[in-house]
Amino acid sequence: MPPSTHPIRINVDLGESYGNWACGPPTAELLPYIDHANIACGFHAGDPLIMQDTVRACLDSPSKRGPIALGAHPGLPDLQGFGRRYMALSPAELTAMTRYQIGALQGFISAEEGAPSLHHIKPHGTLYGLTSRDAEACRAVYAAVPAGARVFGLAGTAHEAVARELGIPFVAELYADVRWGRDGSLVIERRKGSWEPHETRQHVGAQVREGAVTAVTGERVEIPLGEHEVSLCVHSDSPGCMEILKAAREIVDEFNGAKFG
Amino acid sequence: MPPSTHPIRINVDLGESYGNWACGPPTAELLPYIDHANIACGFHAGDPLIMQDTVRACLDSPSKRGPIALGAHPGLPDLQGFGRRYMALSPAELTAMTRYQIGALQGFISAEEGAPSLHHIKPHGTLYGLTSRDAEACRAVYAAVPAGARVFGLAGTAHEAVARELGIPFVAELYADVRWGRDGSLVIERRKGSWEPHETRQHVGAQVREGAVTAVTGERVEIPLGEHEVSLCVHSDSPGCMEILKAAREIVDEFNGAKFG
Amino acid sequence: MPPSTHPIRINVDLGESYGNWACGPPTAELLPYIDHANIACGFHAGDPLIMQDTVRACLDSPSKRGPIALGAHPGLPDLQGFGRRYMALSPAELTAMTRYQIGALQGFISAEEGAPSLHHIKPHGTLYGLTSRDAEACRAVYAAVPAGARVFGLAGTAHEAVARELGIPFVAELYADVRWGRDGSLVIERRKGSWEPHETRQHVGAQVREGAVTAVTGERVEIPLGEHEVSLCVHSDSPGCMEILKAAREIVDEFNGAKFG
Amino acid sequence: MPPSTHPIRINVDLGESYGNWACGPPTAELLPYIDHANIACGFHAGDPLIMQDTVRACLDSPSKRGPIALGAHPGLPDLQGFGRRYMALSPAELTAMTRYQIGALQGFISAEEGAPSLHHIKPHGTLYGLTSRDAEACRAVYAAVPAGARVFGLAGTAHEAVARELGIPFVAELYADVRWGRDGSLVIERRKGSWEPHETRQHVGAQVREGAVTAVTGERVEIPLGEHEVSLCVHSDSPGCMEILKAAREIVDEFNGAKFG
Repeated sequence: MPPSTHPIRINVDLGESYGNWACGPPTAELLPYIDHANIACGFHAGDPLIMQDTVRACLDSPSKRGPIALGAHPGLPDLQGFGRRYMALSPAELTAMTRYQIGALQGFISAEEGAPSLHHIKPHGTLYGLTSRDAEACRAVYAAVPAGARVFGLAGTAHEAVARELGIPFVAELYADVRWGRDGSLVIERRKGSWEPHETRQHVGAQVREGAVTAVTGERVEIPLGEHEVSLCVHSDSPGCMEILKAAREIVDEFNGAKFG
Repeated sequence: MPPSTHPIRINVDLGESYGNWACGPPTAELLPYIDHANIACGFHAGDPLIMQDTVRACLDSPSKRGPIALGAHPGLPDLQGFGRRYMALSPAELTAMTRYQIGALQGFISAEEGAPSLHHIKPHGTLYGLTSRDAEACRAVYAAVPAGARVFGLAGTAHEAVARELGIPFVAELYADVRWGRDGSLVIERRKGSWEPHETRQHVGAQVREGAVTAVTGERVEIPLGEHEVSLCVHSDSPGCMEILKAAREIVDEFNGAKFG
Repeated sequence: MPPSTHPIRINVDLGESYGNWACGPPTAELLPYIDHANIACGFHAGDPLIMQDTVRACLDSPSKRGPIALGAHPGLPDLQGFGRRYMALSPAELTAMTRYQIGALQGFISAEEGAPSLHHIKPHGTLYGLTSRDAEACRAVYAAVPAGARVFGLAGTAHEAVARELGIPFVAELYADVRWGRDGSLVIERRKGSWEPHETRQHVGAQVREGAVTAVTGERVEIPLGEHEVSLCVHSDSPGCMEILKAAREIVDEFNGAKFG
Repeated sequence: MPPSTHPIRINVDLGESYGNWACGPPTAELLPYIDHANIACGFHAGDPLIMQDTVRACLDSPSKRGPIALGAHPGLPDLQGFGRRYMALSPAELTAMTRYQIGALQGFISAEEGAPSLHHIKPHGTLYGLTSRDAEACRAVYAAVPAGARVFGLAGTAHEAVARELGIPFVAELYADVRWGRDGSLVIERRKGSWEPHETRQHVGAQVREGAVTAVTGERVEIPLGEHEVSLCVHSDSPGCMEILKAAREIVDEFNGAKFG
């Protein structure tokens, strides 16, 4: 049984710099390896000028794989904590702050001649984890998704269930540089450790070719991808990000070529 | 010669509270007297929840004068200074931060069933003064105005000239509670003084009925309204705001009734 | 058994405005009724100019009860949520952000000729609740208390236990305008309801004269004041704050006069 | 005539990271080459945890040249602009925001056992340029300097004049990686260009050995160091910072050895 019934895509967070501070490799180095861009919206990272430049860079990027799809990457309102510190927001606050961030990004997209409409929403950091576990919070965030956009999330969690409930197209994610628990959740490390190249290839390869991972506790875990479209996430702020991204691209292209070429 | 060749409207800044802090009378008290709402966008005032509530309150407001037109009120990124402290931003920064704020507001508007599209943009505080004096800054800010929206500004200044240059519809403003210089500019006071009721009536009356004001230096100044649509601004954070607003409404309604009734 | 073995004092949060936004009555109206000032430090409310003005107002305030004691009122870094939204900070972050805020306030105090040294620390909002329940968080915050300063907190909670453990003088608080649970904790309402004057007098009177309250569930709860100094908190942002404050002052003065006069 | 009548020291800005974003080389790599640390205070860069860590790193740093002197590096309240965008603050705002930042840093210093008191104040970025040109602004900022601390500034500008007027000890700065105008001011570039190693050596060498620079317009400019103590600034966010710092250290040590060894 193939792990994904669609060609697999690759998504990367972009625009996570702030003012004079940079985060990860320059956007231009990342773009050739990407299908889906998750663009930070100014709450956990990003500022208006960076958002504008990132949208333009994606639209200008020539790629043999076609245009890069633009997604919003909204986060908690916490620059200092990079959206990785839990904050107790009410459902109304969650909806409003997500609408605000998505709207701001759409302002930059619609300002560009001939730009496509917003492709997807992927919550960032703690907002991603929270919405995967807590259906009420997920409903509040997904209430802000504009018609026509997809959500990126974890198959088998509230992400998938709430998307189905609200009739929002769901894209299941794989993770090149994050480990998994045996319950199918992600193991978020406060400080990202580095990966040996062969570890990455094995970790990505198992997800792409078999739809499975070895959990941190040793068990084999099947990722319930079902019939969903699939996008593999590579983090632009991981140590050794460019190597991970290139390896992931190679493995994904190989899989796509063999299955759908 | 009539001062305005169109019925005069009234605009008020709304949503200038922040978190637990309130600014001016509750929105619900202001709405019955308003035609045009300038909604703060989170940079000098306003936060996502307040923006969402303000948009809804405007759309829900029943008025015999018809629906309240929704405008964006973008400001400098300075909550502590309420957008009233000059900041040296580059033209690219001005465009990007204005797009960001307008986009965020549009996110809330487009989330409401049957909402009209954005009606106008009116820069706030120092951004308003700066763009009235500096055509390059004005061009940078107006570059963010989406197709179909008007700008509100001062007739005879860079506001009008740049709007004409860029083909953006221009609405000329009158000011119920701000004094004018003899050069047709506004005299911004750091702390707003209070007005005697008869002063307000005289100040508003002369602008509405004669298209003129008495400058702080005593001269009569003609406001070059031309054929533009006209909107009279009443500030919601002025002392005695409700009285000024009611008096202004009365004078404007009288003028409109006599000329266009 | 007297509820307090010392004369009871009154503390109020001051300087909780921000930029152009005001919170509660003007400081000058509150000062005549106060013994202890808890001054906001810029994270949940307050800004440098407001802090400077508040410190000066306290030092300049003539009072027959003697000088107003200056305390720091540090909060979570969340202006939009007024420090009332829980945020998951590490112990190191809690210590550092509390040191930062206390140090900033001390900068204003030491700039004033002849000013006394910092009298006490009282965490704000969610930081107060968190430290009352979680001894580790309390230790982290109290690690920032400079030598010579007291902490204000809830008797019988981690506040008291950690203060004892660390050798920090502890002042037990009563609350004029907050209801209590039967376990001796405070019942924090998202939106503060208003109080009938006779309710306030009864609520304050029972605490002051009997060291007890009627819990929201109807039981009588003894507050374990022991031999601690006692300060009664009145919130400056409660509806009807001035009336509550005056009533509290009267009841406290009566008690102090009868017991220690 | 010797350019400096005292041994020359080297100062570097530290702690200019923010949350997850890094700025310049790790503090530990810079410390062995430094005499004076200018520690960011959270307004243009730095956050409480970074400030705490930076103070501790400086105090723990073993150096054959003796302990590293701790200075405050206050900036304008503009993280997004890194304190490099001009903001119009009133004198009262300048004093208050500088007191706030210095106080916060002193909180971290006084929390460390056996720490020395604050050594100096050096305003950052636009606040540095503003105070060098505008005596009123300089007076407002220097009003916040606590007794016992020095100010670092540009000889021959308002920095020196106001320090003399207020009786604050003045340390004259040289600049390893900034070019000078023929009027003795600094030429601030929006984006720092990189320097060829031989250029740096020449630029630093002329300042250290001759107290002079070649202005960008070609003239030789004498820096009026007089009898002041002198500290050479190396920016930690310049491209090639470590090479510049090592070269500067070598040249300074050579000069100090020859003159004062």
